[in-house]
Amino acid sequence: MRSNWVPATLGDRLQDVDTPALIIDLDRFEANLERLRETALGYNIRVRPHAKSHKCPEIAKRQIAAGGVGICVQKLGEAEVFLASGIDNVLITNEVVGERKLHRLAQLAWRYPDARLGVCVDDLGVTKRLGTLCVAQEARLDVYVELDVGQNRCGVTTPAEVVELARAIVACPRFTFMGLHAYAGGAQHRRGVPERRAAIEAAARKANEARTALRAADLPCETITGGGTGTFIYEAASQVYSEIQPGSYALMDTDYLRNELDPSAPRFECALFVLAGVMSLRGNRATLDAGLKAYSTDSGLPTLTFAGWRVLNNPSDEHTVLHQTSDETPIKLGDKALLIPSHCDPTVNLHDWIVAVRKGRVEAVWPIEARGAVF
Amino acid sequence: MRSNWVPATLGDRLQDVDTPALIIDLDRFEANLERLRETALGYNIRVRPHAKSHKCPEIAKRQIAAGGVGICVQKLGEAEVFLASGIDNVLITNEVVGERKLHRLAQLAWRYPDARLGVCVDDLGVTKRLGTLCVAQEARLDVYVELDVGQNRCGVTTPAEVVELARAIVACPRFTFMGLHAYAGGAQHRRGVPERRAAIEAAARKANEARTALRAADLPCETITGGGTGTFIYEAASQVYSEIQPGSYALMDTDYLRNELDPSAPRFECALFVLAGVMSLRGNRATLDAGLKAYSTDSGLPTLTFAGWRVLNNPSDEHTVLHQTSDETPIKLGDKALLIPSHCDPTVNLHDWIVAVRKGRVEAVWPIEARGAVF
Repeated sequence: MRSNWVPATLGDRLQDVDTPALIIDLDRFEANLERLRETALGYNIRVRPHAKSHKCPEIAKRQIAAGGVGICVQKLGEAEVFLASGIDNVLITNEVVGERKLHRLAQLAWRYPDARLGVCVDDLGVTKRLGTLCVAQEARLDVYVELDVGQNRCGVTTPAEVVELARAIVACPRFTFMGLHAYAGGAQHRRGVPERRAAIEAAARKANEARTALRAADLPCETITGGGTGTFIYEAASQVYSEIQPGSYALMDTDYLRNELDPSAPRFECALFVLAGVMSLRGNRATLDAGLKAYSTDSGLPTLTFAGWRVLNNPSDEHTVLHQTSDETPIKLGDKALLIPSHCDPTVNLHDWIVAVRKGRVEAVWPIEARGAVF
Repeated sequence: MRSNWVPATLGDRLQDVDTPALIIDLDRFEANLERLRETALGYNIRVRPHAKSHKCPEIAKRQIAAGGVGICVQKLGEAEVFLASGIDNVLITNEVVGERKLHRLAQLAWRYPDARLGVCVDDLGVTKRLGTLCVAQEARLDVYVELDVGQNRCGVTTPAEVVELARAIVACPRFTFMGLHAYAGGAQHRRGVPERRAAIEAAARKANEARTALRAADLPCETITGGGTGTFIYEAASQVYSEIQPGSYALMDTDYLRNELDPSAPRFECALFVLAGVMSLRGNRATLDAGLKAYSTDSGLPTLTFAGWRVLNNPSDEHTVLHQTSDETPIKLGDKALLIPSHCDPTVNLHDWIVAVRKGRVEAVWPIEARGAVF
C-alpha cells in the first residue's frame, strides 16, 4: 500500500532528496560497524546485532559482513521478513505467545530448514505447546530461556525455573536448547559509567548462577546472550556472556549520546538523520515538513545539525517549527534541514525507505522491509 | 513490504485477534459520524473530514456517505492514495513546496481530471511556479490561500498578502481560486471552553477581514475552510466559515477527552483501541506485547479499559509493563487488553491494518493505505 514514490534516485544530491526522508550517512555507518567489529575482536566475543533498530535487510547484511554471527529481532513478523531476505541466522529475543503466533513460528521454522531460528521462552505451558507444534510440523528451533537480569519485564527469575524450563526444552526432540537470554535493557540508558557497569556485573552474576544450576543438572548452556549499545563492553568483559546484541550502535541517536562514555568503549557517531524541507517561512520562523509522523519524540525533540535556529516544543503531526536565534545560518524556502532523531528505533519504524548517502550523494535507497512488522 | 499476515479474519472474536492490532469499534465510530452529521446540519455548514487522522480510504468513504463533501489530507502522498481509492474530492490543507513535489502535484491533478483536487499556498513564487507547471501539464487545481489565524506555523498574515496571492491564483488559467484555508490548530486542545471559543472568534475575525479585502479587490472568496474536532462548533457558528474539517471526531483519543466539553457540542466516544496481548506474567506484573511501535506517547501513555492495573511509565519499543493495583481484573498469559491511545493520528500511522469490530466480532479488516505517506 506504500506510495509508488521513493524519496530519491541514485546520484541525487542530498538537497534534492524529497522530504521528509530518513537518511543514513554511509561513511559514519560503516565506521560504526568497523568500531564494533574491532572491539568485539578485542574481547573475543560473538556479535549478533539487533535488527529491531533498523528493520532493514540491507543493513543487517552489512552487519553480518562486518562479523555478526546473525541477527536478533523482537517480533515474529520481523523474523519472517529477515529470513525471506536471505539472512539465515535469526534470534527472536522475545517470547512468542498465543496459538496463532505459535503456529506461525513453527511454520516459519519448517519453511527455512537450513536456517538457525531461535526464540526465547519464560513459561512452561508455552514451551510445551510450541514443542508439540514443532514436532507436528517437523520443524527445528533453537530455544533460549529468558532470564530476568534486572529488566523487570519478561523472563524467569530463579535458577530453579531456568532448570525446569531447560528440561522441558531438552525433552522436545525438535528443540535445541541454546542457553540463556539475559538482557538488561533498562541499564542501557543509565547515564553514568559506574551505574551501567554495576548493573551488568549484577546481571552477569545472575546469569552465572543460572548457568551453574544448569551444569549441576547436567544441562548444557552453550550461549549466554544479551547486552546493548550502552553496556555491551561490560557483558563482553564479564567472562559470562558469550554473545552481545547491540543494535543502536549502527545508526545511533541523541539519547545514546547523552550517556557518559566509558573510556574503554568505542565512540559511535550519529549516522541517522531525518531530512526535512522548509515549507513556509515568515519573519524569524521556518516551518519544516516533518513532524510526529517522521520522527519519534519519546526520548525528546530531534536535534538540528546547524546553528542559529531552535526546534520549538510540541511539534505537530506533520510540521516542526523552528525559531531563529541568530543569523548564523540563513534559510530560504525549499531548503533542506538535517535533524538527528532522539531515538532511532521508533523513528526508523515510521519510514518505508532509508536513503543511503555518501559525501552528499545518494548511493542507494533501501526499503525498510520490516517496518510495521509489529505482530 | 508489509508482512503477508493480517491480524484477524472475518468473524474472529476480539480475543482471537493477533496482537498488537489497531481496533475500530464500528458502533461507536458510526455513532460519531452520525453525531457530526446532525450537528453540521443544525449549523448548515459543509463538512470535509480530515483523513490525516485515519489514512484509511474505507473510513473516508463512510465519512463522505455520512455527509462529507470530500476529504482533507495533509500530504501529497496521501492525496495520491485517496484519489486512487476512488475518492474524487481531496483538499491538501498544506503547502506543497519544491520542484519534485510541484511536478508530482501537477501530474496528479492531470491524472484525475474529473476530481476536485485542492492545495494551499502561502508564497508567491511557489504559486506562480505551480501555475506554470499546471499550464504545461494541462492540469486543473483548486487553490486556497492559507491565512495564519493563530497557529503560527504556515500561512500569510495580512489581508494585503491574501489579495496579492489571490490575484496570482486568478491569473493562472488552470487554477480555480477557492478562498481561504484558516485553521487554528493550536486552539483544538486548549482545555477550557472560553479559551477555545475566544481563539476561534479571533480566527473568524481575521478570516473575515481577509474576505472583506478580497471582495474590495473584486476577488471571489467562496470558501473559508478550517476547524478541527476541538473547535468546529465555533467555526460553524461564526457566520464566516463555510466548511469545517474535523478529523479526530471519528476515532477520538484521550487527549481530546481531556478538553472541557461545550454544552452545545456533540460528545464523541473513543472508537480506536490498540489490542495488546499478555506475553509474560510474573507476580503482580504483566507484560504486554505492544510498545512505542504500536502507539504514540507524544500526548501521554495509553489508557487501560479495565480496572486493577496501571501502565508503567517509559514503555519500551515493543513492550508495555502493567502493575497490578487490586484484584478486580485477573489476568492470565495470552489474555488480550484494550488500550485507548492518547493521540489517534500518530498511533494509526504505525499500523498497516485496522480491525473493524462490532459487538466483539471482527466485521472487516481495512488496510491503512496512506500509512507512511509522509512526503
